[in-house]
Amino acid sequence: MSPLSTVPIPGTRDFFPEEMSVRQQVFERLYRVVESFGYLRYDAPMVEPFELYAAKSGSDLVNQQVYRFTDRGERDLAIRPEMTPSVARMIAARAGQLVLPARWYSHPNLWRYERKQRGRYREHWQVNVDLFGTESWEAEAEILEILAEMMFAVGAKTSDFLLRVSDRQLVVNVLQQQVGLDPQQVAGAFGVLDAIEKVGPEETAAHLAKLGLSQAQADRTIQLLTHGEQFLEQAAPESLQQSNVARALSKLVTSQPVNVKFDPLIIRGFEYYTSSVFEVFDTNPENPRSIAGGGRYDNLVALFGKPRIPGIGFGMGDVTLIDFLQTHKIAPAPQIAPEVQVMTPDESLRQRVKEIAASLRQEGLRVVTPLDSRKLGKLLERAAKEGVRCVVIAGGDELARGAVKLRDLGRSEEREIALTALPVVIRETLATPTQEKP
Amino acid sequence: MSPLSTVPIPGTRDFFPEEMSVRQQVFERLYRVVESFGYLRYDAPMVEPFELYAAKSGSDLVNQQVYRFTDRGERDLAIRPEMTPSVARMIAARAGQLVLPARWYSHPNLWRYERKQRGRYREHWQVNVDLFGTESWEAEAEILEILAEMMFAVGAKTSDFLLRVSDRQLVVNVLQQQVGLDPQQVAGAFGVLDAIEKVGPEETAAHLAKLGLSQAQADRTIQLLTHGEQFLEQAAPESLQQSNVARALSKLVTSQPVNVKFDPLIIRGFEYYTSSVFEVFDTNPENPRSIAGGGRYDNLVALFGKPRIPGIGFGMGDVTLIDFLQTHKIAPAPQIAPEVQVMTPDESLRQRVKEIAASLRQEGLRVVTPLDSRKLGKLLERAAKEGVRCVVIAGGDELARGAVKLRDLGRSEEREIALTALPVVIRETLATPTQEKP
Repeated sequence: MSPLSTVPIPGTRDFFPEEMSVRQQVFERLYRVVESFGYLRYDAPMVEPFELYAAKSGSDLVNQQVYRFTDRGERDLAIRPEMTPSVARMIAARAGQLVLPARWYSHPNLWRYERKQRGRYREHWQVNVDLFGTESWEAEAEILEILAEMMFAVGAKTSDFLLRVSDRQLVVNVLQQQVGLDPQQVAGAFGVLDAIEKVGPEETAAHLAKLGLSQAQADRTIQLLTHGEQFLEQAAPESLQQSNVARALSKLVTSQPVNVKFDPLIIRGFEYYTSSVFEVFDTNPENPRSIAGGGRYDNLVALFGKPRIPGIGFGMGDVTLIDFLQTHKIAPAPQIAPEVQVMTPDESLRQRVKEIAASLRQEGLRVVTPLDSRKLGKLLERAAKEGVRCVVIAGGDELARGAVKLRDLGRSEEREIALTALPVVIRETLATPTQEKP
Repeated sequence: MSPLSTVPIPGTRDFFPEEMSVRQQVFERLYRVVESFGYLRYDAPMVEPFELYAAKSGSDLVNQQVYRFTDRGERDLAIRPEMTPSVARMIAARAGQLVLPARWYSHPNLWRYERKQRGRYREHWQVNVDLFGTESWEAEAEILEILAEMMFAVGAKTSDFLLRVSDRQLVVNVLQQQVGLDPQQVAGAFGVLDAIEKVGPEETAAHLAKLGLSQAQADRTIQLLTHGEQFLEQAAPESLQQSNVARALSKLVTSQPVNVKFDPLIIRGFEYYTSSVFEVFDTNPENPRSIAGGGRYDNLVALFGKPRIPGIGFGMGDVTLIDFLQTHKIAPAPQIAPEVQVMTPDESLRQRVKEIAASLRQEGLRVVTPLDSRKLGKLLERAAKEGVRCVVIAGGDELARGAVKLRDLGRSEEREIALTALPVVIRETLATPTQEKP
């Protein structure tokens, strides 16, 4: 038999401890923000009925990117490409029992059969934050505030990112009332305009003409949608008053100022979004990537035959976020070294070494002991290579005095420490900066 | 279109916040133990090449239970049914670069197409703990110690669980040397004996006869394997000396005594186990379920065409563990209530309310604010229903004095508190027991 491959399948990643440590540290900061707003974690199965996505996720995703298969019971299933349909299903299942508003979050792995290109993966991990049960503009405000605080929590500055928001309903109103498009043309125009930043205005105009827009209508549509906040001046005052996002824009309460702009070119692919949509972009002009995005989906829960429960939320994925942090040089350093290694020069004391290690673990320290009987020099060499900071050396003479040697590999210092004081001294040592290399 | 179902697919579970909170609390305790032993978290893709499991996982699992499908690129894939092949693949990929021993852990979701029955699910979550790069018996000791500490960390007592260990190689030696079986008969006998506790000795004897064992050989085999530790008396001293598990048994260093027994009936299904195997069982005689299990797999990494790197590890799944905790009434209570709600009787102060909430979040508290303009009475009612402990009421008069009212819903007390003292007073309140209901 030829050897098995050590490479994960295309478009997926192994997370070795150093990469996993970065992912964990980043997401733990995100969790803390989300939980500080009272959001509760939930989870759902990784595999769902295919029809859950067929209903409303958008045809490109469903037809080209969903991992679809038939199980041993002939069920038509999909590995989840996104989390919103699952959380809407769960909210629908508890409709009538839940205290609303419900604030929920999750951290699923999602699968899409993406074409292979830089920064695109077939499996990624995403924090999903959703708020159910209110149509108030304060929901938009809270969701946008959380999004901004998540960016600040991972070390982004105000100038590092831009929050672009829009309101599909407001854009529909303007395109119908000011440009005279019919509902079908508006729907078609959304699909076309979503790509304008990639294909440019001329090709977009040509696509709009195919939808039956006159030259003047196409020009006006493009002009309206490519001038950012000026778009709001075209909207009727009553439409603006009904737009949650337009109302929330100037009222965000955040720990640092946020760059937030209304931009009608933010459209988002999912068909279920009903009004507010938004995305966070890196302001780096060379790499203006979208880091997170979401919107309001007021009719999704009703698809399950339940009363209408409005929802709003967003997802933030690990791939673009960690890329962003690395680009801005603010990604956390991996933390993978054990804090303490306990060893002995005397083979007969190995059980004693393990007891000392066990007592240090009870104090919350990360402690390893050798598993083989190498010489002390070899063990110290390996500990240094692994980045261990504190080495406890348990010799018979010191133990007889109720003490051990503590060697600080970060500063090349060694002291005798009473066993009773050991946890405290180790904590102090770990909190001391290591010596600069000359 | 008929409404979509709110029910997850058969054999899977939704984790609503109250269930998720229990799962999170339990697994966070397990992580702390594993990390205290210096183990580093890793992760691998949820989908792997099918051939990864075909090689060594055992034919029943592969033929009847693996979720196998073909992707849009015609690859033969599987949703992972277990984690060991993935971690062996990753270790093989870094062979030669890793500092050994390598201590790794993960927390994957795993899929098997199980027949529907109580306590069996098609998706479950499992902590996997693995140690690579040493053949020392101290690896067995460390792995068994971690397993025991994990049980203690979730609240199990010594008498609540039994660690049953065996050594396949030792059993092979005895069956060959004492009973005269050939290697093929031994392999067949393992498959048959794995079921003896379900089908009984007579049916087992009949199955053994089909493998070509004489009546005397079958009787002797059953007698040897059903008398627990007496088995060790049959083993040759040199076999015992080579058995890591037999050596580790009496040398475990744990924070509480552990019931550990050699039991040759512990066989484990995976074909890749080479010697040590072990399982943790609930001692409840009515429900002697297996809670965790693992073993030594010294040849798995070599399947990837790399140098032989021995491995030993185990998995502990959420389903049987949480069942165990509930049976013994030691499962943690869900923690899902926000700690603080900030509200105001004065609509014009809503931005101020949000600023107070934001400042409390900066102090690490979990804080919600109302998203709609209901009356204070309604908001308080809802806060009580949600289990909120502290309600901050920001009125104009108090704010003019730099203060707010703090209502403790757990003790029906209300006081005026200076804003500067608010975080400290809230922390104190949260630490105070709630009043007993009369």
